[in-house]
Amino acid sequence: MGLGERMAKYAIGLDYGTNSVRALLVDVADGAELATSVFEYPSGDRGVILDPKDPNLARQNPQDYVDGFYATVREVLQGVDPQDVIGLGVDTTGSSPIPVDRSGQPLAFDERFKDEPAAMCWLWKDHTSFAEAREITEKAVQLGMPYLAKCGGTYSSEWFWSKILHCARTQPDVFEAAYSWVEFADWVPGYLTGNLEPSKVARSVCAAGHKAMYADDWGGLPSKEFLGALDPRLADLRDRLFDKAVPSDQPAGTLTKEVAERAGLREGIPVAVGAFDAHFGAVASGAKPGTLVKIIGTSTCDCMVHPLDLPLADVPGLCGIVKGSVLPGYYGLEAGQSAVGDIFNWFATFVGRSHEELTAGAMKLRPGESGLLALDWNNGNRTILVDPLLTGLLVGQTLHTSPAEVYRTLIEATAFGAYKIVKRLEEYGVSVDEVVNCGGIAEKSPLVMQIYADVMNRPMKVSRSAQTCALGSAIFGAVVGGAYSNAEEAQAKMTGVKDVVYTPDPAAAAVYERLFALYTELHDAFGTAEWSGSLGHVMKELIQIRHQARV
Amino acid sequence: MGLGERMAKYAIGLDYGTNSVRALLVDVADGAELATSVFEYPSGDRGVILDPKDPNLARQNPQDYVDGFYATVREVLQGVDPQDVIGLGVDTTGSSPIPVDRSGQPLAFDERFKDEPAAMCWLWKDHTSFAEAREITEKAVQLGMPYLAKCGGTYSSEWFWSKILHCARTQPDVFEAAYSWVEFADWVPGYLTGNLEPSKVARSVCAAGHKAMYADDWGGLPSKEFLGALDPRLADLRDRLFDKAVPSDQPAGTLTKEVAERAGLREGIPVAVGAFDAHFGAVASGAKPGTLVKIIGTSTCDCMVHPLDLPLADVPGLCGIVKGSVLPGYYGLEAGQSAVGDIFNWFATFVGRSHEELTAGAMKLRPGESGLLALDWNNGNRTILVDPLLTGLLVGQTLHTSPAEVYRTLIEATAFGAYKIVKRLEEYGVSVDEVVNCGGIAEKSPLVMQIYADVMNRPMKVSRSAQTCALGSAIFGAVVGGAYSNAEEAQAKMTGVKDVVYTPDPAAAAVYERLFALYTELHDAFGTAEWSGSLGHVMKELIQIRHQARV
Repeated sequence: MGLGERMAKYAIGLDYGTNSVRALLVDVADGAELATSVFEYPSGDRGVILDPKDPNLARQNPQDYVDGFYATVREVLQGVDPQDVIGLGVDTTGSSPIPVDRSGQPLAFDERFKDEPAAMCWLWKDHTSFAEAREITEKAVQLGMPYLAKCGGTYSSEWFWSKILHCARTQPDVFEAAYSWVEFADWVPGYLTGNLEPSKVARSVCAAGHKAMYADDWGGLPSKEFLGALDPRLADLRDRLFDKAVPSDQPAGTLTKEVAERAGLREGIPVAVGAFDAHFGAVASGAKPGTLVKIIGTSTCDCMVHPLDLPLADVPGLCGIVKGSVLPGYYGLEAGQSAVGDIFNWFATFVGRSHEELTAGAMKLRPGESGLLALDWNNGNRTILVDPLLTGLLVGQTLHTSPAEVYRTLIEATAFGAYKIVKRLEEYGVSVDEVVNCGGIAEKSPLVMQIYADVMNRPMKVSRSAQTCALGSAIFGAVVGGAYSNAEEAQAKMTGVKDVVYTPDPAAAAVYERLFALYTELHDAFGTAEWSGSLGHVMKELIQIRHQARV
Repeated sequence: MGLGERMAKYAIGLDYGTNSVRALLVDVADGAELATSVFEYPSGDRGVILDPKDPNLARQNPQDYVDGFYATVREVLQGVDPQDVIGLGVDTTGSSPIPVDRSGQPLAFDERFKDEPAAMCWLWKDHTSFAEAREITEKAVQLGMPYLAKCGGTYSSEWFWSKILHCARTQPDVFEAAYSWVEFADWVPGYLTGNLEPSKVARSVCAAGHKAMYADDWGGLPSKEFLGALDPRLADLRDRLFDKAVPSDQPAGTLTKEVAERAGLREGIPVAVGAFDAHFGAVASGAKPGTLVKIIGTSTCDCMVHPLDLPLADVPGLCGIVKGSVLPGYYGLEAGQSAVGDIFNWFATFVGRSHEELTAGAMKLRPGESGLLALDWNNGNRTILVDPLLTGLLVGQTLHTSPAEVYRTLIEATAFGAYKIVKRLEEYGVSVDEVVNCGGIAEKSPLVMQIYADVMNRPMKVSRSAQTCALGSAIFGAVVGGAYSNAEEAQAKMTGVKDVVYTPDPAAAAVYERLFALYTELHDAFGTAEWSGSLGHVMKELIQIRHQARV
């Protein structure tokens, strides 16, 4: 090695999404992304096991996770010296709990259960457990438990205990066969480090805090008494779960010889404790106090951090407020929309047209011109209503309404939904000074970003990286690998935003302010049971707005 | 002619629709339809002059009416002896007023105005005059005038005076150039009989009574005082309109030599006074007390008759209650839906699929299965809300919603809208003992008819004729031609229903009863300004209904 040449060190970030897993090889010095590889899950429908009789069901085969790890890591290592890889980080979707046996093996790996969806990973977007979610919420309120204060006041059908309770109720054979349950985000680091036994697997405070009602304040998981009031079998299960969850600047262990050899890596390098994809995406987009990071994909996750020493109210409707879940040393705040890209994809399929064609048509339209307004609830509403039993709504159709008009309207609807989250945060004293977007849609759709800027009447920035979740994993790989002493130091060197910033157009913002008021009326009328008021003027006003937009 | 051979006599019915005119040659003895010919209007977009800047505008070139007459009549006469044609009847769309000069020529025939849409026929579905319609309604209420009592309490933007007042306000040059205004339904018989001068043209009581606030009760058209209060120019115009309107068992005159020669007909045969297409369709479908005839096309018209000597309340929302407008000697009651086939056509174009494909998919679905509900207001609501400023609404979309599901939902929405009309009639003491459907959709879509039967929980019959409006015209041609002494005698011989009757399925009817209750909530919430209540349970109930439909 010559003078002036530095010794390169790498971290690998693994990002397990809904349809595929990505590995990203990153230079720990500056975050440069040197190689990436994507593995599409081979099982089910693009990785998701579905049930034609129940649209709420969504499961995954954990074997895809294992196969995807080796395929992608081996590929990104080509051309570099594996000795220079100093650490690994892992993020996944969640809450995606997996029933496991005593050794930590997924029940789906057992011949008895290999075709049983209940024995697989219960994917985040599985909504089969809505009745149990309601029951958990009601029980916590009834027993005066504090558990929901930090997750918006309502427990979700997407979360850990709802799914496990639903399994106990509807598939007792699987529930009985399961020694314990492990989050997808914990299972992968457990597998890589040989710490898969339920008592040994490192548990992510991000997963536990946001989805399993874990908090130091009440001694970890909810009490046996509470769980027993829901179902005695849950109280028993608690003993086979965990007492402590940790942030991702901690190692889950080190790479086993067997895994290292098969992957082409060095044995013994540290693997960071896992977390959810969006939280790592937020870190890699420069999350800091005052910055809202929106990770926009099939759904969105909206993340902020808040100093531990500043006051923070319980924000109704927020999915979670968890110490250390985004950045160690800060509260992590999580909100989100249950479907964004999924709605656009659905509609493109519905009308049999490409996103390019629909986007080109939508670009030609002015705000309000179509006379249309939609609610973005095709997959329920995560924040601020926390209600999976909501559906889409479109109003204002005429005999001339075109697909491009509806496409734009659906984008606007997701922008209004996003704005609801910002407003809710600010109402409760969390100032949103900056919005940084990341994810495929932020990268690829200036139309979406401009509408978001106009609707929220504030600039939209875009994260520099096109694969922020994987970069976030690599950042924590770099931290546990010793390149930095904490995540903020790593952020300072390894993250940034793009030069292009979408700034609001005042005329568009003025139209959207009016449309947002109508959206709010529909939102409150259709989204909250208590509301009572008149909707009679909504269409008239829409027609007026359309008329004015055309004059 | 041998023994036992009867002397055939024919009548020709002319049916002027939105996109084309049809001639039908009918045997007056039994209504047998011997020949038909259709002429597609060559002007504009399938006969309709549009304005890309104003979706409310819809006009027609009257030259198409003249050209269509000769083309179709000459064709149906092939193979018969024109001497055996004893009379002609004419129906048209309406209210479709035409500005004319002193001789009764449309202003659009004048070189000065030939490209001026305001000088053309103001087609029934032109909605440019909504502000004037509101003004007329308000003025009638304010001045305590009785004129609206028989047309549902609300004057429509589709009607005679709204359009003329809008012309006076927005195109004074055209208004000034017009000596008078003549309904399309009056203009064609006037042309055929040489009685085109405004003082001579026979005026249809159907058009005048349903659309121009004409009634014997108040001495014909609205008073000069009332019209003057709207605009002094309207009061002046009244002197150049008409005092008396008559039913279609009266002749408008006899065929002129010139027209007869050009058409290949006998000079001097009688031409019946015109009427609206749907009213003649009702006659040809066997309209009698207790029978609701639904003429289902791009929009619907729902017609009933009621004996003059029985009490009849003013029915709010009905487009009209007019003596002699359907059958002479009865009240004619008219209701309708602003768009039915137009909604299906719009959606098929929207998703780029054929009606056949969408119908096949929709046939496989059970009531309630899609979880969707729609309002059928893409073109406003004619009955019972009488409000063109309403739009469509679709609720219940998920990420799995398919085009066939929405197609079925739109059919259901039109069925709910139809049911609202039946309920309103019955609420006001007009018993609906039988429903007879006619028009293209009744003919061609068992899916639509079965859904109508299930939603309204009563049998749906279908008129025997596939071209009832033209048959109705021929019936009045036969009456004025002397084959029968009145329309009911002609009906008895010349009309009937098909053998197939769509009977309600009790299970489907039960689901639709629940969906109709939800439709009513949306209808009242979005359709009436006074309503105040909660809509929060609508989606929950829809999901529950869907769930139950799938179990």
